[in-house]
Amino acid sequence: MTKVDGQALAAKAIAARDATIPKEYLLPKSAYPLPKNRRGLLESSGIMKPRELEIVDLTMIPLAKAIADKKYTAVEVATAYCKAAAIAQQATNCVLELFQDEALAEAKKLDDYLEKNGKTVGPLHGVPISIKDHIRQKGHAAPCGFLYAVDQIAEEDSHLFKILREAGAVPYVRTINCQAVMHLECRSAWGETLNPWNVDLVPGGSTGGEGALIAMRASPMGVGSDIGGSVRSPAAACGIFSFKPSIGRVPNSGAETLSAAAGYEGIISTLGPMGRSVEDLELIMRIIADAKPWEYDPVLQVKPWREVKRTGKLRVGVLRDDGVVKPVGSITRALDYAVDKLKKNGNFEIVEYKPYESEKSWDIITKLYFPDGGKLVYDSLKKAGEPADPMTDWIVGQGRELDRDEIINLVAERDRYRKAVAAHWQKAGIDCLISPVGPTPAPQPFTAKYWNYTSYWNLANYPAGVFPTGLFVDKNDTKDDYKPRNEQEKEVYETYDPVKAEGAPLCLQVVGYIGHEEDTLDAMKQIVDAVTK
Amino acid sequence: MTKVDGQALAAKAIAARDATIPKEYLLPKSAYPLPKNRRGLLESSGIMKPRELEIVDLTMIPLAKAIADKKYTAVEVATAYCKAAAIAQQATNCVLELFQDEALAEAKKLDDYLEKNGKTVGPLHGVPISIKDHIRQKGHAAPCGFLYAVDQIAEEDSHLFKILREAGAVPYVRTINCQAVMHLECRSAWGETLNPWNVDLVPGGSTGGEGALIAMRASPMGVGSDIGGSVRSPAAACGIFSFKPSIGRVPNSGAETLSAAAGYEGIISTLGPMGRSVEDLELIMRIIADAKPWEYDPVLQVKPWREVKRTGKLRVGVLRDDGVVKPVGSITRALDYAVDKLKKNGNFEIVEYKPYESEKSWDIITKLYFPDGGKLVYDSLKKAGEPADPMTDWIVGQGRELDRDEIINLVAERDRYRKAVAAHWQKAGIDCLISPVGPTPAPQPFTAKYWNYTSYWNLANYPAGVFPTGLFVDKNDTKDDYKPRNEQEKEVYETYDPVKAEGAPLCLQVVGYIGHEEDTLDAMKQIVDAVTK
Repeated sequence: MTKVDGQALAAKAIAARDATIPKEYLLPKSAYPLPKNRRGLLESSGIMKPRELEIVDLTMIPLAKAIADKKYTAVEVATAYCKAAAIAQQATNCVLELFQDEALAEAKKLDDYLEKNGKTVGPLHGVPISIKDHIRQKGHAAPCGFLYAVDQIAEEDSHLFKILREAGAVPYVRTINCQAVMHLECRSAWGETLNPWNVDLVPGGSTGGEGALIAMRASPMGVGSDIGGSVRSPAAACGIFSFKPSIGRVPNSGAETLSAAAGYEGIISTLGPMGRSVEDLELIMRIIADAKPWEYDPVLQVKPWREVKRTGKLRVGVLRDDGVVKPVGSITRALDYAVDKLKKNGNFEIVEYKPYESEKSWDIITKLYFPDGGKLVYDSLKKAGEPADPMTDWIVGQGRELDRDEIINLVAERDRYRKAVAAHWQKAGIDCLISPVGPTPAPQPFTAKYWNYTSYWNLANYPAGVFPTGLFVDKNDTKDDYKPRNEQEKEVYETYDPVKAEGAPLCLQVVGYIGHEEDTLDAMKQIVDAVTK
Repeated sequence: MTKVDGQALAAKAIAARDATIPKEYLLPKSAYPLPKNRRGLLESSGIMKPRELEIVDLTMIPLAKAIADKKYTAVEVATAYCKAAAIAQQATNCVLELFQDEALAEAKKLDDYLEKNGKTVGPLHGVPISIKDHIRQKGHAAPCGFLYAVDQIAEEDSHLFKILREAGAVPYVRTINCQAVMHLECRSAWGETLNPWNVDLVPGGSTGGEGALIAMRASPMGVGSDIGGSVRSPAAACGIFSFKPSIGRVPNSGAETLSAAAGYEGIISTLGPMGRSVEDLELIMRIIADAKPWEYDPVLQVKPWREVKRTGKLRVGVLRDDGVVKPVGSITRALDYAVDKLKKNGNFEIVEYKPYESEKSWDIITKLYFPDGGKLVYDSLKKAGEPADPMTDWIVGQGRELDRDEIINLVAERDRYRKAVAAHWQKAGIDCLISPVGPTPAPQPFTAKYWNYTSYWNLANYPAGVFPTGLFVDKNDTKDDYKPRNEQEKEVYETYDPVKAEGAPLCLQVVGYIGHEEDTLDAMKQIVDAVTK
């Protein structure tokens, strides 16, 4: 077998991607060196017109309304977002492929339709939507973060993508996810995606490209997937909103990754929206349910979107410390701030939530991730001479190869654990939980190893969303003087540096009970209103 | 290791069971020899008083109303049903354990409660309920059809059992299921359960004890489980009603069989009600959903019972022949009769339903049943020196041992198949399907080998119910002059004998779309009304 030149293949893939960025959207030389905080580049680069900046400043629902009201054409909106995405790519390396021509053609069709019929095709008429690498789009590559798959063109749209298109969304960009779609950071053969608030930090992962793009205001709405925190970690790192539903409400079909075998049910990834308001996330979830995806995918639950009629106070549990890794000072500051706002609001009843066997969750889920001991991942890397990222080695190394009976026993253990978590939750009698998304704000590269504030809810299968508190890491957030209780905690406290993290957004997580997507998003709306408005 | 004397152990188990039948309920010598059709024994034995016979003639809902209205006390009702169960046991060998004292004590408590509070504890207040062997009841054995487990006493009630008890049901009898809970017949160390309509025939299985007991009018309602037809085959053989929901609506917790490893998800059994009217089945399903079982079992779907508001005609597909084994003449006669009634009714639109890849379904599901190649089953049999029933050898032999990756690939195939069946169904655009429950009426022992009219809907995960048409096998139903298309069909046609099957009830199956339990039961009600009233 000829040795594959991975570096040359990667360079080719990057060049091919770069070629999808229209030349007229390249940053002027005068823009360099780019600042550490790159969120202002849309304005400062001079590439976008004032009207285009006005467009990208809107969140999804007002944008859809403005298009329906003919304030902006879909073509104008697509143009604005293609420009913004091109800038975001140069700022953070978040784009896998930009396809402006296709987007403009689609937008034109929608404008013509609205003109001719006097009505929109659906609630997302003309809204540009960004899509994570592994969520298939007909005619486009979905390498799933593997270099060898750079030319694997999807023959069909994924089910979720189809639903969003039918609602009128305009695809224009596909975004980078990390190697093997299994880190809470975002490096791959396509390079490193940067955090737009502070490029020394990671944008979270695996859906890091979406995180950076949306935080740059270069997408009104994206979709990602989460099996350990992959839509929540990027939202938290990049200061945006995201939502991970429980299993069976959003179709996974056509969004398979290449690092998990089809048919493996030990732990299942769930797709979810990432955007700039809770209302936007909720609309996406509602659109998915309204499409009755269960009529085509029998794996899904048959469950129309349910209207939430809440009476009385919302009973919110507060998880301050999971008992394994205590969040660092800035995170605790954000949580205290939010809880204080909730307490003062009067519509919430706040109770302290005791963590339930956090170590055990990590122990079970890491064994469930790679039942083949990582064979599929390493074989895939080998195909294109792609070196394993240290975080790939690390996460694969958390588990080991399991045989048939070991998997079956582990799944039984998972179910017993889920039941115990549910009993613990019911005993607390809470409507939802407010919790850190991780022990630190956006971490430095190669350090995002404590997943358990997010992965805990993958194993338990609870819906969970992320929102920005409006606070940021401050230079006055000093390094905590804290004596770690264990090795994991020690590593987090040693690698975290509040000075280097300056400017990173501080976000929190809202967790609801299994299958209660509607209630969880409703609770999130109330909490976000109370904390940030 | 000392050789275990299986025969002695079985004799001991049977004697222990026999000892649970109160002596005063033993049939008088004059009753013997018992007739071939034993359904009249409740009346002819002289054990039951006229008022008790009146009680057991009621279906569940009117019975519950009569107790709530204080027409009958719960104690009177429990007494009537204990007598009837004792007679049914002597007639058909359907009982694993009768516990009259416990039932009467429970009934007394309910009577006192009603007297004191002027209201019932729940919708099943005072209704006796029969339970299949493997569905755990605290303080009672659940051998799961294995002799070795005869003394394994449940430490806790199963989740379903608890829900029914909380609704006011009075447990009084546990019923036999076949060895390993995996035949459509009903033989085990406890002997052979007989079909009450014709004791030369099997009562179906694996929930054969419930089938015989309910058909004897010795239970108003029972619960069983179905992974290939186990609540539907006994209903069809015994001429009663039953319902198999899709996965995730009825809690399985505490109803594990000893022939499947906890944590194995390749194919999952679903518990379901067996009774004497569709309305009764529906009430049981509603009671289960109303108990919000998902609050304690996170494996379940969060899905309150949905009211069905149907407008327009019900579009019913007719499956006449699955393309592998054509149903014999009496079944076709029943199906023609029902379809004719539906056509004449005017509220139904009838379309022919083309079968979709039936062989493939059997191929996949039989591989999924015993991924360990039957090791667990044979090890379990060995423990008590229990010989394998020929049907155990047969069903285990349909599959083979699979390794980790074979199972994962097979599950992927299962999911692709489920999707293809769903697409086929959606294309037909039907609300439900009317179909045979099997290729023959109640079969003779050792011949129930073609499961695919029922197991097809386990693999596809569709809800399906059974109802009696009111027709029976007639001595004029001659043996079909039919040239079999394949070996499976040949075996069915060779072993089936309409003369021997005389008097067997003719039942049909109604199948609805996945997760549409409410709609399926609603359709069943309409179909039953049109066909039988």
